[in-house]
Amino acid sequence: MNTPANPPVNAHESTSPVPPARTLADPDTPFAVVDGAVMRRNIARLKDRADRLAVTLRPHVKTAKSLDVASFLHTGTPCPVTVSTLAEAEAFADGGYSDITYAVGIEPHKLPRVIALLRRGVTLRVLLDSTEQATFVAEAARRAGIPVPAQLEIDCDGHRGGLRPDAPGLVAIGRILHDAGCLDGVLTHAGESYFAHGAEEQRLAAKNERDTAVAAAERLRAAGLPVNVVSVGSTPTAHAAEDLTGVTELRAGNYVFFDLVMAGLGVCRVDDIALSVVVTVIGHRPEHGWIMTDGGWMAMSRDRGTAAQAQDQGYGLVADLAGNLVPGLVMTAASQEHGTLAARDGAVLPDLPVGARLRILPNHACATAAQHRGYHVIDGTRPNDPAPGIETFWERVTGW
Amino acid sequence: MNTPANPPVNAHESTSPVPPARTLADPDTPFAVVDGAVMRRNIARLKDRADRLAVTLRPHVKTAKSLDVASFLHTGTPCPVTVSTLAEAEAFADGGYSDITYAVGIEPHKLPRVIALLRRGVTLRVLLDSTEQATFVAEAARRAGIPVPAQLEIDCDGHRGGLRPDAPGLVAIGRILHDAGCLDGVLTHAGESYFAHGAEEQRLAAKNERDTAVAAAERLRAAGLPVNVVSVGSTPTAHAAEDLTGVTELRAGNYVFFDLVMAGLGVCRVDDIALSVVVTVIGHRPEHGWIMTDGGWMAMSRDRGTAAQAQDQGYGLVADLAGNLVPGLVMTAASQEHGTLAARDGAVLPDLPVGARLRILPNHACATAAQHRGYHVIDGTRPNDPAPGIETFWERVTGW
Repeated sequence: MNTPANPPVNAHESTSPVPPARTLADPDTPFAVVDGAVMRRNIARLKDRADRLAVTLRPHVKTAKSLDVASFLHTGTPCPVTVSTLAEAEAFADGGYSDITYAVGIEPHKLPRVIALLRRGVTLRVLLDSTEQATFVAEAARRAGIPVPAQLEIDCDGHRGGLRPDAPGLVAIGRILHDAGCLDGVLTHAGESYFAHGAEEQRLAAKNERDTAVAAAERLRAAGLPVNVVSVGSTPTAHAAEDLTGVTELRAGNYVFFDLVMAGLGVCRVDDIALSVVVTVIGHRPEHGWIMTDGGWMAMSRDRGTAAQAQDQGYGLVADLAGNLVPGLVMTAASQEHGTLAARDGAVLPDLPVGARLRILPNHACATAAQHRGYHVIDGTRPNDPAPGIETFWERVTGW
Repeated sequence: MNTPANPPVNAHESTSPVPPARTLADPDTPFAVVDGAVMRRNIARLKDRADRLAVTLRPHVKTAKSLDVASFLHTGTPCPVTVSTLAEAEAFADGGYSDITYAVGIEPHKLPRVIALLRRGVTLRVLLDSTEQATFVAEAARRAGIPVPAQLEIDCDGHRGGLRPDAPGLVAIGRILHDAGCLDGVLTHAGESYFAHGAEEQRLAAKNERDTAVAAAERLRAAGLPVNVVSVGSTPTAHAAEDLTGVTELRAGNYVFFDLVMAGLGVCRVDDIALSVVVTVIGHRPEHGWIMTDGGWMAMSRDRGTAAQAQDQGYGLVADLAGNLVPGLVMTAASQEHGTLAARDGAVLPDLPVGARLRILPNHACATAAQHRGYHVIDGTRPNDPAPGIETFWERVTGW
């Protein structure tokens, strides 16, 4: 755990004259908090699964974007990781990570930064799904005199990019890469699994993801092209896969924190959610049944991922500082710096004075975390401890 | 205009080995861009209106959160401003702004930072709508030996917080403040005007906002309580108000940049939108009719404000770098770092190679701007200039 010598009281306003943060009652709100005990449990759960499935785990660090969080993914030796931006790749390379997959389709303008990372000794794997990309990657590798490991993005469920394993151009693209010493493997992501409800649908999504990636790899191999990496993964499918024969590595990112979307899918329970936002009551509108807080969409994000689920959770569920859910209380609306809480299912609106603090559990951890510079960290909660102690502060990597 | 000696090439990755940014074709994507010429036109439009209506304009700086942008709001002498966080208040105080309204209900924990700003000579006005808030503000002022200017939040349309002007407690709360030397005025915000379609609905919303604020002020005055400030405003009502008799000041924030929500309401035209996000094409899915880009919700935000309007604009409309709309092209879906563009209304998908750059016009400028550290600034566009030159970089205030 990376404990700075002078942990910021509140990363958002380090010049503020508030006393050092000791508990969740101290920093000015709103702020993000991570329960390290819950996070470590989530990390251990998927690590055990990957070990049982005999695949390498390559966590996607786009959710937490934190070297401190990542340090819990391994036991000292930096593990393979997946990133969503070159800024993450560069920050993780600075932190000693040397095996990084940049899982967004490559475009020519970004190649100088890719080459620069490769020259530093980082195995930076890029992703592509077209002849034009394979051609400029091969040319850049030849020009730089260094192979650019490239993976073919395979589409398993029509979610966004990628080639179907039977796409006419697949082998030709693989050959362009192979001839330049750049063919590294295939990668697929079951993005539609975020809409796969329940264990059986997720199991089928995981089987389809695995079958599609392996089919693409076999087709390339049948054409005489070596395929080293067969990479699959999403948080729902990573937790549902039963057999990953032919797959070499598993990716997932959200699982480190989890969120209400994942709980709604049944991938985790609500008490597995490690990320929340501490807010303060700033007013009441009893005639509307509202409690107003100082946590709006700037603190939670505009993500309404549970709107598409059987149980719409608004902008989030509400807990006390010790993490106990307040029964029936939901964040139903958000302005920039205002949140509206209301009761549902016949629940009684609790009596919370101005100044009372609450924790909002997010719909989508990746989006909520992105609204903050970092995380105040607690290490579990205890029934008789109304304001858990703050252990440290973990900063995020930002930008592109 | 604040031009730093060494403007960052790309604020998101200042260590990247790309050449200095000279045009919108240079920085790595995605990045936010502000057209300064369009912004100045928007600023002049509302300033003229406020002058004609004979009220002080107190812009809300929560949209741009930039001292550089704010410098265009006045001619050298910092103007009154509205802020949404104490971090903004502190940053603007550092920048010489001495008349600041913090337009989010006050809670006790934040009072030390409020008092600290008052002690620096900043007139920091706070907002409240309850006896409990008035009591702790009055107590804090007495304890500190300095008045805390407080405004009563008045609810004109049931949008979120505030007291109705006929609320039983209104005068009693005013008296608590007055007795402590803290009563400053009344403030209302027609938040529901974001759903007022067309000029007539907006005119009525503006009249209601004015009438409600003035009624609350008159009721307090009738009880012998002095009311100095009568503050109203929202971007739609500020542009629709015809008579602000009895009002002393007008607030609006979004108008500096405008966005597709405001264009959908008819408050501005699409070519008044000063903020956009430059993205790059990273792939194609012709079988789905999709163009994939590297601008996802991390760059645009998850805001889907136009979903409630007659014309849903997805995650944004698409223009070329010179700002010309690409007919029929819309950003229809967003992953964290992937955007999906598709044609609508029978439009033909344009032929854009991997590496082509586009500008996405946002639904909600406040939310999109918040995803970025600052703005690359251009000064208008010219028909024969495919990549407008970058003049400077303006940083944002972040956090709380």
